[in-house]
Amino acid sequence: MNEALLLQKGQAVLALQPFSVLIGAELRALSPGHCELHVPASEKIRQQNGFVHGGVVSYAADNALTYAGGTMLDWAVVTSEFKINYVRPAIGERLIARAHAVYAGKSQAVCRCDIFMVVGGEEKLCAVAQGTIARLATKDSPE
Amino acid sequence: MNEALLLQKGQAVLALQPFSVLIGAELRALSPGHCELHVPASEKIRQQNGFVHGGVVSYAADNALTYAGGTMLDWAVVTSEFKINYVRPAIGERLIARAHAVYAGKSQAVCRCDIFMVVGGEEKLCAVAQGTIARLATKDSPE
Amino acid sequence: MNEALLLQKGQAVLALQPFSVLIGAELRALSPGHCELHVPASEKIRQQNGFVHGGVVSYAADNALTYAGGTMLDWAVVTSEFKINYVRPAIGERLIARAHAVYAGKSQAVCRCDIFMVVGGEEKLCAVAQGTIARLATKDSPE
Amino acid sequence: MNEALLLQKGQAVLALQPFSVLIGAELRALSPGHCELHVPASEKIRQQNGFVHGGVVSYAADNALTYAGGTMLDWAVVTSEFKINYVRPAIGERLIARAHAVYAGKSQAVCRCDIFMVVGGEEKLCAVAQGTIARLATKDSPE
Repeated sequence: MNEALLLQKGQAVLALQPFSVLIGAELRALSPGHCELHVPASEKIRQQNGFVHGGVVSYAADNALTYAGGTMLDWAVVTSEFKINYVRPAIGERLIARAHAVYAGKSQAVCRCDIFMVVGGEEKLCAVAQGTIARLATKDSPE
Repeated sequence: MNEALLLQKGQAVLALQPFSVLIGAELRALSPGHCELHVPASEKIRQQNGFVHGGVVSYAADNALTYAGGTMLDWAVVTSEFKINYVRPAIGERLIARAHAVYAGKSQAVCRCDIFMVVGGEEKLCAVAQGTIARLATKDSPE
Repeated sequence: MNEALLLQKGQAVLALQPFSVLIGAELRALSPGHCELHVPASEKIRQQNGFVHGGVVSYAADNALTYAGGTMLDWAVVTSEFKINYVRPAIGERLIARAHAVYAGKSQAVCRCDIFMVVGGEEKLCAVAQGTIARLATKDSPE
Repeated sequence: MNEALLLQKGQAVLALQPFSVLIGAELRALSPGHCELHVPASEKIRQQNGFVHGGVVSYAADNALTYAGGTMLDWAVVTSEFKINYVRPAIGERLIARAHAVYAGKSQAVCRCDIFMVVGGEEKLCAVAQGTIARLATKDSPE
């Protein structure tokens, strides 16, 4: 699949996620092993101090990791696990999550993600994540 | 502070988080080192397969960890980091995140969280998390 | 397999690990989903301040998680990933790692582990861990 | 401090860690925010299948993360927490852990580490890690 089609397919999946639509997430780039997801820092996704809520930052990490891994594993995937370190408050106009696969086998991919806030046109790192994306196995479907 | 007041204070903070209000999060219990947070599994917080979005599950873990740690550290805290393992798809009527502090020092607390979905009145474990909650240090405020 | 046989089998596997023998690790208990591993705090496993080296604490967490998961997955397993939070310096006479499975499916188990140091006969929590143990899949064997 | 002196100081600290000496760890490079640690894959650090034990891989990650963070925080540091994903069995002649700081504030640094095995002269990625290194605070010394 060429990258324009890959991105279209990814955007179509995102449009089917009511939660991603609710918070205004946008898939901006998708290629094998790479993903860039944006979330405009609207009022509704903030916490009590005006920062983007940590839960939205972790959503963006989770979703970007899943897309990056999904491109390496034929799309039918789930996030098995991830960890995130917050390094700066998520202050700014726009959140950008960039994820890439550091390893991909037949059944899983291990990916990393950097999450930035755009502040006055400049990107500032606000969190880093790492996690496992697993191919959905029909024979081991969860209960 | 007695537990009824602690819960009221916690609910007042939650009401100030536009994102928590947006998704309908409810703080149901709060005591020193313990927190229970609910999120009704409405359509808007789902992904393309009808499950609660993993990003909402991670939000609930993050927020419950923060409350559990915050009760041990005088409230002015941030989540430094956490990790989450998803063990079952988040299918059901209601998400419940229960967190507790396993250690609390002067400047940080380490907490664990179990996240359940209520399915037909029964709770099913769908994720487990562990993370660090840090007291906000005025002398080392992030940029 | 009854628990006495399970423990014998586990101890036989540990005796085949040169590194576990090198540092004096002892498998003290093993039952379905549960494991207890000890490491005497000898001089050779310490760091420059006299504490048990964090790398040994993480070894104990890793190995205890693997045993706990292995009992749920027919033994042929690997640790996919884990995270560990250190909460106190590992000072004392003996390190004890207790792990249990919080979820086990057909292909993987998610486990938690508490790591204690015995100080003057009393156990003090020094670290907590959480991770994924995966069944070795012959069809997706790593390169 | 110039980099030659930084490396000498780092090697002197490593020589004071009985456990690092026991397994033959070598600090090969150290500069602000960067560290490279080697461990020759001798028989004694293996597990039952002949691979380097996962606990040694996690030791190398832990120690490399600590050095990388320590150079950014005036040396008196501890590893607060880290997570590691194993992506290939640790087969080969030599383990190399390369860590770098992705963020450093006044009281903590967040670092990443890639762990390779050298196989026939070629490096193969076998694990990736991410964690938090904290400055030792005299006022919040653990019990």
